[in-house]
Amino acid sequence: MIEPLPDLLIAPVVRAALTEDLGRAGDVTAQACVPADARLKAVFAARKAGVVSGLACARLAIAQMDPSADFRAVVEDGDTLGPGDKLAWVDANARALLSAERTALNLLGRLCGIATLTAQYVHAIEGTGALIVDTRKTTPGLRALEKYAVRCGGGVNHRFGLDDAILIKDNHIAACGSVGEAVRRAKAAAGHLMKVEVEIDGLPQLEEALKYGPDVVMLDNFTLEDLAEAVKRTAGRATLEASGGVNLETVRAIAETGVDVISVGALTHSVGVLDIGLDAA
Amino acid sequence: MIEPLPDLLIAPVVRAALTEDLGRAGDVTAQACVPADARLKAVFAARKAGVVSGLACARLAIAQMDPSADFRAVVEDGDTLGPGDKLAWVDANARALLSAERTALNLLGRLCGIATLTAQYVHAIEGTGALIVDTRKTTPGLRALEKYAVRCGGGVNHRFGLDDAILIKDNHIAACGSVGEAVRRAKAAAGHLMKVEVEIDGLPQLEEALKYGPDVVMLDNFTLEDLAEAVKRTAGRATLEASGGVNLETVRAIAETGVDVISVGALTHSVGVLDIGLDAA
Amino acid sequence: MIEPLPDLLIAPVVRAALTEDLGRAGDVTAQACVPADARLKAVFAARKAGVVSGLACARLAIAQMDPSADFRAVVEDGDTLGPGDKLAWVDANARALLSAERTALNLLGRLCGIATLTAQYVHAIEGTGALIVDTRKTTPGLRALEKYAVRCGGGVNHRFGLDDAILIKDNHIAACGSVGEAVRRAKAAAGHLMKVEVEIDGLPQLEEALKYGPDVVMLDNFTLEDLAEAVKRTAGRATLEASGGVNLETVRAIAETGVDVISVGALTHSVGVLDIGLDAA
Amino acid sequence: MIEPLPDLLIAPVVRAALTEDLGRAGDVTAQACVPADARLKAVFAARKAGVVSGLACARLAIAQMDPSADFRAVVEDGDTLGPGDKLAWVDANARALLSAERTALNLLGRLCGIATLTAQYVHAIEGTGALIVDTRKTTPGLRALEKYAVRCGGGVNHRFGLDDAILIKDNHIAACGSVGEAVRRAKAAAGHLMKVEVEIDGLPQLEEALKYGPDVVMLDNFTLEDLAEAVKRTAGRATLEASGGVNLETVRAIAETGVDVISVGALTHSVGVLDIGLDAA
Amino acid sequence: MIEPLPDLLIAPVVRAALTEDLGRAGDVTAQACVPADARLKAVFAARKAGVVSGLACARLAIAQMDPSADFRAVVEDGDTLGPGDKLAWVDANARALLSAERTALNLLGRLCGIATLTAQYVHAIEGTGALIVDTRKTTPGLRALEKYAVRCGGGVNHRFGLDDAILIKDNHIAACGSVGEAVRRAKAAAGHLMKVEVEIDGLPQLEEALKYGPDVVMLDNFTLEDLAEAVKRTAGRATLEASGGVNLETVRAIAETGVDVISVGALTHSVGVLDIGLDAA
Amino acid sequence: MIEPLPDLLIAPVVRAALTEDLGRAGDVTAQACVPADARLKAVFAARKAGVVSGLACARLAIAQMDPSADFRAVVEDGDTLGPGDKLAWVDANARALLSAERTALNLLGRLCGIATLTAQYVHAIEGTGALIVDTRKTTPGLRALEKYAVRCGGGVNHRFGLDDAILIKDNHIAACGSVGEAVRRAKAAAGHLMKVEVEIDGLPQLEEALKYGPDVVMLDNFTLEDLAEAVKRTAGRATLEASGGVNLETVRAIAETGVDVISVGALTHSVGVLDIGLDAA
Repeated sequence: MIEPLPDLLIAPVVRAALTEDLGRAGDVTAQACVPADARLKAVFAARKAGVVSGLACARLAIAQMDPSADFRAVVEDGDTLGPGDKLAWVDANARALLSAERTALNLLGRLCGIATLTAQYVHAIEGTGALIVDTRKTTPGLRALEKYAVRCGGGVNHRFGLDDAILIKDNHIAACGSVGEAVRRAKAAAGHLMKVEVEIDGLPQLEEALKYGPDVVMLDNFTLEDLAEAVKRTAGRATLEASGGVNLETVRAIAETGVDVISVGALTHSVGVLDIGLDAA
Repeated sequence: MIEPLPDLLIAPVVRAALTEDLGRAGDVTAQACVPADARLKAVFAARKAGVVSGLACARLAIAQMDPSADFRAVVEDGDTLGPGDKLAWVDANARALLSAERTALNLLGRLCGIATLTAQYVHAIEGTGALIVDTRKTTPGLRALEKYAVRCGGGVNHRFGLDDAILIKDNHIAACGSVGEAVRRAKAAAGHLMKVEVEIDGLPQLEEALKYGPDVVMLDNFTLEDLAEAVKRTAGRATLEASGGVNLETVRAIAETGVDVISVGALTHSVGVLDIGLDAA
Repeated sequence: MIEPLPDLLIAPVVRAALTEDLGRAGDVTAQACVPADARLKAVFAARKAGVVSGLACARLAIAQMDPSADFRAVVEDGDTLGPGDKLAWVDANARALLSAERTALNLLGRLCGIATLTAQYVHAIEGTGALIVDTRKTTPGLRALEKYAVRCGGGVNHRFGLDDAILIKDNHIAACGSVGEAVRRAKAAAGHLMKVEVEIDGLPQLEEALKYGPDVVMLDNFTLEDLAEAVKRTAGRATLEASGGVNLETVRAIAETGVDVISVGALTHSVGVLDIGLDAA
Repeated sequence: MIEPLPDLLIAPVVRAALTEDLGRAGDVTAQACVPADARLKAVFAARKAGVVSGLACARLAIAQMDPSADFRAVVEDGDTLGPGDKLAWVDANARALLSAERTALNLLGRLCGIATLTAQYVHAIEGTGALIVDTRKTTPGLRALEKYAVRCGGGVNHRFGLDDAILIKDNHIAACGSVGEAVRRAKAAAGHLMKVEVEIDGLPQLEEALKYGPDVVMLDNFTLEDLAEAVKRTAGRATLEASGGVNLETVRAIAETGVDVISVGALTHSVGVLDIGLDAA
Repeated sequence: MIEPLPDLLIAPVVRAALTEDLGRAGDVTAQACVPADARLKAVFAARKAGVVSGLACARLAIAQMDPSADFRAVVEDGDTLGPGDKLAWVDANARALLSAERTALNLLGRLCGIATLTAQYVHAIEGTGALIVDTRKTTPGLRALEKYAVRCGGGVNHRFGLDDAILIKDNHIAACGSVGEAVRRAKAAAGHLMKVEVEIDGLPQLEEALKYGPDVVMLDNFTLEDLAEAVKRTAGRATLEASGGVNLETVRAIAETGVDVISVGALTHSVGVLDIGLDAA
Repeated sequence: MIEPLPDLLIAPVVRAALTEDLGRAGDVTAQACVPADARLKAVFAARKAGVVSGLACARLAIAQMDPSADFRAVVEDGDTLGPGDKLAWVDANARALLSAERTALNLLGRLCGIATLTAQYVHAIEGTGALIVDTRKTTPGLRALEKYAVRCGGGVNHRFGLDDAILIKDNHIAACGSVGEAVRRAKAAAGHLMKVEVEIDGLPQLEEALKYGPDVVMLDNFTLEDLAEAVKRTAGRATLEASGGVNLETVRAIAETGVDVISVGALTHSVGVLDIGLDAA
């Protein structure tokens, strides 16, 4: 089971999304066409196969518009769906439900889309021992939710922001003069609960990078041969992360080189929504 | 030229994105590895072909971290880019620029991605007289920006929220008893500056839908034959919008049926970022 | 019946108003003089005749201070009140109710005032077929609520902001060179769900204004004769809006010229509160 | 000269008002009809006589849209205007100025309206030694600004909220058992920098109210005779405030009874905007 | 009994504190180690003696994470605690409680610390008739709560901000030319519900300061002899406040000089938390 | 040199603090007593010895009130001050400076206080190789700033919130059944950039705690003998953190046991401000 985020972290996103959609006059269509006291029973159903993530967003969107709405999920975040599978039943004031529908689906569809894509990557490398991780290439304002969706799909999270781990890239190395000096400075600056990762773009940098004991070395755009060689040379002295050029065709071969984690920006920066509908029941 | 959004509408999104990324300690890597007074000159360059949108996001992200940064765009939103084309030069405090980089690229890449995809649809129907429009299937919190990106790609915006136009769907019709009654109520409720659109799912509903004078009729999941027939029968009495099953393969045939606008949810709900990098110059 | 706004749009205004009033120490008088567990039953009653609007504001203000308060409205927004008529009963913690009283009355009184004034205009033109509409001359922060109050009084809303319709005024015409060119550009820029209105200040501009098919023409400060002539010449080609110099003495004659809508800035920019009191019961 | 509020207190109100007006797409009319780099020189001019208040609101509204706009006030808050008098010149980007115009005028007109009405009351009692004060019957969100406008008109501020002074009313007295006990409790609860006021509705309560040393006694809806008698009996032991039934016809007679301050809710709750226009120059 | 602040003033502080602690991924430890449906009963207990303040903060922190948590206080704010005394029982979802624990304790411990220190000062001057008051040297964002804690400890509040009373200091006097002129201007500017205080740093200024009738004179860093002399000379014409050099050793002698109030910045600017723990029950 | 936080993280705290202090009417004393255009030159000076932290808070507070103020720091965060040493010169509008003074001093004094206390602990263990670290016992809303102040004093930061590292405590162990199982679950849940710490309260738990490879073991309330024994037994297999019962008298002996880090809650939860004044120059 996936560990849910506290509602406290989700509710502000949901409220902002509803407010953005309601604008200055609310749902004029529902006001014009639906009686104020009408009720509507409906079901969230997947049009295509996928992995569930974000049920709480749908629940909270509807609850914001009708606090007494009855929302009953029949699956849990992290579950796998076939086409037509139901996610949740809802019985609510009709206007409230129709007004919340798009917000609920926008969030739910996006998070399910991320979870589904992540699961495809995870499935592709099954048995290799490698892990699929995300990046900071997330949608502004939705990082906590999108990284949660990665977990729902079986992925693991890279750092959450600029502040919870050190990740040394080419410009930092240039500023320090050498990769070794960059790692040395980073280790000196990091507290006892902060890890240090360094990105290198070729095997020649590996030994110098390892010299000062980074926790993780990112091998950026390495060939399969170089990845395998890096695994061999490192011999467990650091966690190895492959990045660059990763897609569903290439990921298994990358995993089979023995790297520990494979980071995939596309999990969050280029993902389609999972097609989910809200059908009157 | 595309008319830019006021900075006042963009800056809060940019600030929230930076704050989300900086977390509680700021950019620990830059602090550890880059001298406080170092400067960095760099260039935003496209790795692939596309259409520009969101330069202001990049400019504002960098300005938030270094108010005296020099940012010089060499293209304008709406321009077409080839692979390797430069978008903007920047000369700024090195730490500030590195800290703002991911936020700038996340927003810029996403908006360029939307503009690029929109332009593909617009290109596909060139000469037909139809327009490509977006939907409300946008990312929560980014609707104004994403709809702006659609405009940059040559598309036109559908309604911005639940409050600026009436759009009658199946559940509203069910609540009113008939499509005609739904349109009648909507027209009565709409002010003199608000348009009314009604969605129908088959030709039999068309004549009744037109009876009370809607501004727009949405033809949802119609076959090409039915679309053409609807155009013929409507004879200019309303704007006709095709929706459902639209992709780059099908869109031209749809446009050639004579419909006025074609709405494409995928413009915003399933779009990849345009790959843009920030290279030291 | 008037269609209520969702609480989600009202609650932030109410909370901000209460917070503004409670300041940094809360209601020191209630704390000093009223026992913490005392209860108070009271009734909202109109001191003068008017039209109800904003009951939800009173309900939410009290609920913010005492979530278990019992609030029972005996009228609905849009109803007509005589002097002394009761609006709602409330039974709540005494301190909570006294602390919320001014916020509740400030909002309720203002919205009832707008609804009442609007109803006077609507009544004055009864039978003419014209509609009374508001303007953007609203109180900063209260636009959604004030435009809702106009609806409660039987009025219709003009656009809600700068973004949901195009309204061409003299400076825009000057920038375009001619009224015709301004309308042409506006029509080209407007999406299929956005209407275009153009303001003219004399009959000579009418025919050119109509040339490019605006949805609405605003006749600003026209004489009664010119209004009638404009109605005749337009012959249904556009909705006609009269504005300027409208007051309760002049409005009927204006309506009788045959214009479609009459906009009245005073509905929101110069309106007195309806005198409502909260009396211990 | 009136002491201005810090921009820090005004800017959030202005920004919220602009954001409310710009909505999700900005000023579509200006975008459609005005070139992006056009400039506009204009002048704020009063259509009617009045008192100035809120120039900073107009300045800040324009600066938010065009930080490099040139805004030159030719009067100061508190100054008296004749019909046609100019308030300020502005030279700014044309789109920015047109987009900010309504927000600037909504705030400026409202504050000038309050200052103008206040000045009429102040003028009406000239020479009597009494002061005109406001109430908490202000517009939610605008209390600081509206009370500032009262000062611009020559009035004095009553308390700013529930927390900066104690004001005992009938319900508090009922909860305490007697007016004397209420004042006693209030004096015991008040810190050394907080004043205590008690409202009474008849002469019989006066002596008991004075017994525990309130700073101010509010004489609510007293006849002129009773006001004069209260002044005589109080003999300087407390500040006396007349309230209720105050209008421009009655205020002088009330002031002449010798009361110290006269509170007028209408200053803020039922005030028309001062008609101000922005004319191209 | 201490009069509690409305939850409306406390909840935003609590929510912000929780959000700050939960970051972008929530409580990863609880998610990893505690079953989602586990419950936990626990008790808040004081490790040392002190005075209670801020129970509502603990209640609201837990309620934010688990709205159905059962929180039962066994003491009230203002009560005295011995070491080991219990403050409240709680029965809640285990994860929710563990996630809220630090936020609850940070606020509760701080407010109890302030109340406890205040009570020590109040106790030290028992029987003298003087009052202990706080200052504006509070923690940014917590002024309302910290001043409430001072009340819980038996202290009285000085002004709450720059806007609810006038306090003339040396720089203001310098700007006015003399202490008398400063008081004169302040009295003229103050409304009828605003008090005026003036700070002097020696006896020679006293008579001039009193000339224009300030409500309070602050005697800054006076010797005990000078304080006594000031009391004698003032003879009740103003409230006298001693400030500067006040600590638990000196405060009684200061109080015995006959001053009315003694202000102590350390109550809020240099206070340790009261050690409180949350123990599984 | 200490690496400064970006202004973007500090400015919201400063603005909120100023707004809290300005209330609804601004600085009434400065308005009454200081001419609007008067200027004031002043200097921030330490009354006692200490370590600097938070100069940016003072700079930003003044800049919010007077954007053209000239603020020149003569020391840097992290520098050591003697009594009377100057921190910064400022030349600004007099009202603006006086209005910002308390906010500037409240933040600056608090952060300097934390840096000063931290430096005392760091000094006390000089030469031992151990590090002083903070805790999450920070002031709500100020965590980023207070942890920055710890760095200014030479300390190192523990985790920033519940989300950036795993810290297993007694309740988590109880939920898992054993310390070993808790660490095992935590390691399985932690991503490749997240460290795992486990708190134990006695030597018997040590070996089991180490079994699953935690990054850090916290030895809570261990005797000196047990600390030394734990260091010996651990033999570098994990970072060891001592906590509990740490004060300036005990800290050196603790450090000499060979533990790696010593956490001190008092650094932020029980710290006095450093006495700093703003003197007219």
